[in-house]
Amino acid sequence: MRIEIINTGSELLLGTTLNTHGAWMGMELLGLGLRVQRQVTVPDGRAIIEALEEAMSRSDAVIVTGGIGPTSDDISREAAAEVLGVELITDEAALRSLEAFFARLGRPMAEANKKQALNPVGADILPNAHGTAPGIYAPPRMSGDRLCALFLLPGPPSEMKPMFREEVMPRLRSLAGVDADYQMELLRFTEIGESDFHTKIDHQLEKIHDLEVGYCARPAEVDLRLIGKQSAISEGKRIALAAFPDECFSAQSESMEEVVVRLLSEQGKTLSLAESCTGGRISSRVTDTSGSSEVFTHGFITYANEAKTEVLGVPQTLIDTHGAVSEQVAIAMAEGALRKSGADIAASVTGIAGPNGGTHEKPVGTVWIAIATHEQSFAMHRCHTNRGRETFKQVVSQAALNLIRKSLLS
Amino acid sequence: MRIEIINTGSELLLGTTLNTHGAWMGMELLGLGLRVQRQVTVPDGRAIIEALEEAMSRSDAVIVTGGIGPTSDDISREAAAEVLGVELITDEAALRSLEAFFARLGRPMAEANKKQALNPVGADILPNAHGTAPGIYAPPRMSGDRLCALFLLPGPPSEMKPMFREEVMPRLRSLAGVDADYQMELLRFTEIGESDFHTKIDHQLEKIHDLEVGYCARPAEVDLRLIGKQSAISEGKRIALAAFPDECFSAQSESMEEVVVRLLSEQGKTLSLAESCTGGRISSRVTDTSGSSEVFTHGFITYANEAKTEVLGVPQTLIDTHGAVSEQVAIAMAEGALRKSGADIAASVTGIAGPNGGTHEKPVGTVWIAIATHEQSFAMHRCHTNRGRETFKQVVSQAALNLIRKSLLS
Repeated sequence: MRIEIINTGSELLLGTTLNTHGAWMGMELLGLGLRVQRQVTVPDGRAIIEALEEAMSRSDAVIVTGGIGPTSDDISREAAAEVLGVELITDEAALRSLEAFFARLGRPMAEANKKQALNPVGADILPNAHGTAPGIYAPPRMSGDRLCALFLLPGPPSEMKPMFREEVMPRLRSLAGVDADYQMELLRFTEIGESDFHTKIDHQLEKIHDLEVGYCARPAEVDLRLIGKQSAISEGKRIALAAFPDECFSAQSESMEEVVVRLLSEQGKTLSLAESCTGGRISSRVTDTSGSSEVFTHGFITYANEAKTEVLGVPQTLIDTHGAVSEQVAIAMAEGALRKSGADIAASVTGIAGPNGGTHEKPVGTVWIAIATHEQSFAMHRCHTNRGRETFKQVVSQAALNLIRKSLLS
Repeated sequence: MRIEIINTGSELLLGTTLNTHGAWMGMELLGLGLRVQRQVTVPDGRAIIEALEEAMSRSDAVIVTGGIGPTSDDISREAAAEVLGVELITDEAALRSLEAFFARLGRPMAEANKKQALNPVGADILPNAHGTAPGIYAPPRMSGDRLCALFLLPGPPSEMKPMFREEVMPRLRSLAGVDADYQMELLRFTEIGESDFHTKIDHQLEKIHDLEVGYCARPAEVDLRLIGKQSAISEGKRIALAAFPDECFSAQSESMEEVVVRLLSEQGKTLSLAESCTGGRISSRVTDTSGSSEVFTHGFITYANEAKTEVLGVPQTLIDTHGAVSEQVAIAMAEGALRKSGADIAASVTGIAGPNGGTHEKPVGTVWIAIATHEQSFAMHRCHTNRGRETFKQVVSQAALNLIRKSLLS
């Protein structure tokens, strides 16, 4: 079933309002095994007509959001009637319900609101319990050389979402004769790039019948998306996990920080962090996660060298001999955080974020990450090409969280 | 000038990734006085071809994001060549630069990455300093009955955004023959909502000739956007600043953390932070800002009560008597951070982030924020309705940074 979404609203194109409707509907429809094939944003006004004609000529269902309010730039209703080639007539029940809505608010109904009761001939009104604009459903009719159904929904999320769930989903389910076997799983990887998948497993995944494979790369993270029947997904998962067993940090759509908090929680352990170049980013990611207050007790952000010596007890001689960005100082920071906090595991990060401070031996991007537990301490070295402060902090915090994850699993 | 945006990526239609490119570009283009007329999202694969043909036949410029990575579903480059009716040839300079990128990473370049150096004949390569995928610019050529320019940009925001600003904007500015008199200024406000502007100054702003006014509301922040000639902008600015002098934290598009770091730097002062419920978010925001290492020395994330007493020296009796979320404990935390760090100013935050831990007297969302300097200590109380952990941390960190800002200005 081919579904397209049209979002109307100039504010979406100006960028002052983020369009979240498309993503939200995509997730809802996936639950029915349905996919959105295209999403289009057009400004208020007549641009909707051309977009509607195009979408209806190639789709089985088109969902429009916005443009059914009372003002002059709200013309989705008129555009639908024009494209469907029918008249608009007042739906008496809808008009009563509008009047009742304003009566409940204790406000007189403006003349402009009356047009919200207009309905293309042959279409059904979709009730709106949360606002003035009723939705519209035009059952499948010939558009070009195919049958296409049309839904018009209000723009405000608080009105659109309940109407989508209560009115649109059941109709789409019945139109599609939904196959309940259709599913999606997300596997998340770090320390490898998208091209590693291409080199190592793409050719194997391609051979699996009826499996759709997709990738999404973020800084220090690649998502592998598998869509199909459960048997095809399981086979794809087996291949990916066999190729990259250590690099897969979640097979349940968890973020890296969620995995770390879950592992700590399962093992009844507590964590402490000592951050220099990440400046609190690791702590902030950990505390974005529900349940973190049970496992994360102390964070130390020791930007200045004096902070490293005074707060964490790093010996000044270590800094003098090896430099603040060194294996020795990273380990001393982690051990200091462990000692000061009494946690079960501590991690530290020290590095050169740039743009200044790099040398030939330690260029900008040099990082040491250390782990200390009551059994052992160790550190790893990384060098990241400079991709700006924001990305640098994200990539380094990911590497540190991954080292904590691996150390909890070992 | 008619501009369309095409975003490719199945994850955008599945809803697993929110499409923020369109909104971001809309805001950037508005700075040039340009508008996006349509935005389209298509899945990975061949859907891009039809979308490109449609867009190019009715636009002066089309901007595509995504689909120029190394994997098999990345076909924007091939689609562009097909629609432009030209061959793809390897750009030797782009290939060298790809090889250099991998050399810096210390990783071998996969065979798959080579296709990222392919370029449609007659198009220019746009360098990518932040990733492997170079962009592509095809200068205006006939498409249907009009001239249309085409840009292909990488999908990851960390690569797309700098390329857009450095490579796309200057070309669009020159293609559009942008009126140099036409400008945009952004004023940023906190502690007030969008409706305060409507109530208080909208009617005054409306009277200014040829001034376009727009708002963008974010958690704990409202941007006022003024577009027009300099004289109209100045008049609008005067009205806004007269109405909300304390609430405007930047008239130069700075973020709150940039303002705080700049003020500290100008005054030669250092900052220390003690965070409980914000879990490192304030420190992370401060250290996102270039120059922060000169002014931010120590951060303490004291989630657990023991961390508050042991690390910051908050008396246990204070916690027992008043609770960890109280004026007294907030002030003791800030004073502890000031003492431990030797900084000139310290701020602390303690609050109930929820979803659990609230009581009748101190409901979820209760927060105390304190400031300590060598002259004085004081605290303020806030209660935020619960809008999720992420928003809570953002709103509270904004309030804390604003209190630091005000205290530096007083």
